[in-house]
Amino acid sequence: MSSIHADEVQRFLTIMNQLADLSAKEIEPFFRGKLSVENKKLKRTYDPVTMADRNAEQVIRDFLAQNLPSHAIIGEEFGTKEQSSEHCWVIDPIDGTRAFIMGSPLWGTLIGLNYQNEPIIGLMNQPFTKERFWASPEGAFARWEGYEGPIETRQTTTLDSAIITSTCPDLFASAQDFQAFEKLRSHCQMTRYGGDCYSYCLLAMGSIDLVVETGLQTYDIAPLVPIVRQAGGVISNWQGKDPGQGGQIIAAATQELHAKAIDILTS
Amino acid sequence: MSSIHADEVQRFLTIMNQLADLSAKEIEPFFRGKLSVENKKLKRTYDPVTMADRNAEQVIRDFLAQNLPSHAIIGEEFGTKEQSSEHCWVIDPIDGTRAFIMGSPLWGTLIGLNYQNEPIIGLMNQPFTKERFWASPEGAFARWEGYEGPIETRQTTTLDSAIITSTCPDLFASAQDFQAFEKLRSHCQMTRYGGDCYSYCLLAMGSIDLVVETGLQTYDIAPLVPIVRQAGGVISNWQGKDPGQGGQIIAAATQELHAKAIDILTS
Repeated sequence: MSSIHADEVQRFLTIMNQLADLSAKEIEPFFRGKLSVENKKLKRTYDPVTMADRNAEQVIRDFLAQNLPSHAIIGEEFGTKEQSSEHCWVIDPIDGTRAFIMGSPLWGTLIGLNYQNEPIIGLMNQPFTKERFWASPEGAFARWEGYEGPIETRQTTTLDSAIITSTCPDLFASAQDFQAFEKLRSHCQMTRYGGDCYSYCLLAMGSIDLVVETGLQTYDIAPLVPIVRQAGGVISNWQGKDPGQGGQIIAAATQELHAKAIDILTS
Repeated sequence: MSSIHADEVQRFLTIMNQLADLSAKEIEPFFRGKLSVENKKLKRTYDPVTMADRNAEQVIRDFLAQNLPSHAIIGEEFGTKEQSSEHCWVIDPIDGTRAFIMGSPLWGTLIGLNYQNEPIIGLMNQPFTKERFWASPEGAFARWEGYEGPIETRQTTTLDSAIITSTCPDLFASAQDFQAFEKLRSHCQMTRYGGDCYSYCLLAMGSIDLVVETGLQTYDIAPLVPIVRQAGGVISNWQGKDPGQGGQIIAAATQELHAKAIDILTS
């Protein structure tokens, strides 16, 4: 596993929190306000982009260009800024745009830092509910009203006592992926849909046990990888490999639950 | 439609807000805390009840017994208190217990007042996000951070521009109900699951267009009826009749959308 110096971790975490504050100011006026929703893709796939999304990513990029000009950036809205640096920032200004345009608070701003291609620091910010989740090699933490401190996954090891979530049945990348999910969830205690990035944070705080999705992009997942892992969870693609590139993703509260779930997803 | 005097409306709204504050104090310590989850039914149907649920309903009942002793009460946890009064309070202390135990904020406390069997005043309170929605014959209102004022549904009249929600595919009362929902949603722009009472409030604030569910109890829906109607929406059962008794429910942003959706649900 890649490593960076502890003082660098602190510096980057401070910047990450500044970026979360800056982007929140861009996003908040648009939540439940008049949105300029465009459709990037065909109507049937409905991928709304909002002014909030673009403004937030721009303010993050501007800050990074000024303060860490040598670092690479991958963002949802404005693509990849290639650099020779071993540091790459990964940004999804509004993960959960569907929730956002519906007025639901189950979306978040994702900001991550990869070091030598490994997700090493990550943050999720929910400005409306005033929740923030973050992780580095020093651990996973969260704050919401009434709590600020470390978070950890719960010790669920059997599928029949597990709560499983996915964002929406419609968002699986293929019919086969959805069938695999349907098979897995039939072994679980309870299924719940809706969540995007929010679900990985619920897993990290010990409230749910499995998140299973497919068709993810790197910016949808890389910032969440340190949060899940440092909280004690396991996250990978369905082949048990690097989740940081997106695709088919599974996050689990424990190693044992992860293994059992992958067995079913790939059988 | 039944009516009560304006000064009575104000008095009951004041009491309803007091009940929301009181119940929130009982519920908040349990959210994301250690919950005593019991299963009322068989394991497969998973209907958790929490201490928060019971404590909140008890404090509401105690307040009503002291201040409005002649009024009837229907509550999720402690059943029906029959009285000769034309006034009946309808209480669901935590609507969305599944969301609650998952740490998701998409639950709420429902408090309604029926007059001569007609839902006439209603309130939904979300203590974690500090959102409150309420309605009486004087209109529908809401407050959340950054907003306090009237709310209204949006003017969506066609299914192909409608956002439709339901709490979960697993919660339809029968396979036929689910098939009807599947057929309806295939005509809509976007489907989203998760929400319980929160979805009806998103509809009332103009963020979504349709909520369709089945198997509801009177306490799941009666307090939401005034909120949807006073915001300009239409709510009924699938036969277009009184929604206040629960069962198969449809809420729509406009009369036109409501008619089109019912046509498909019952065809």
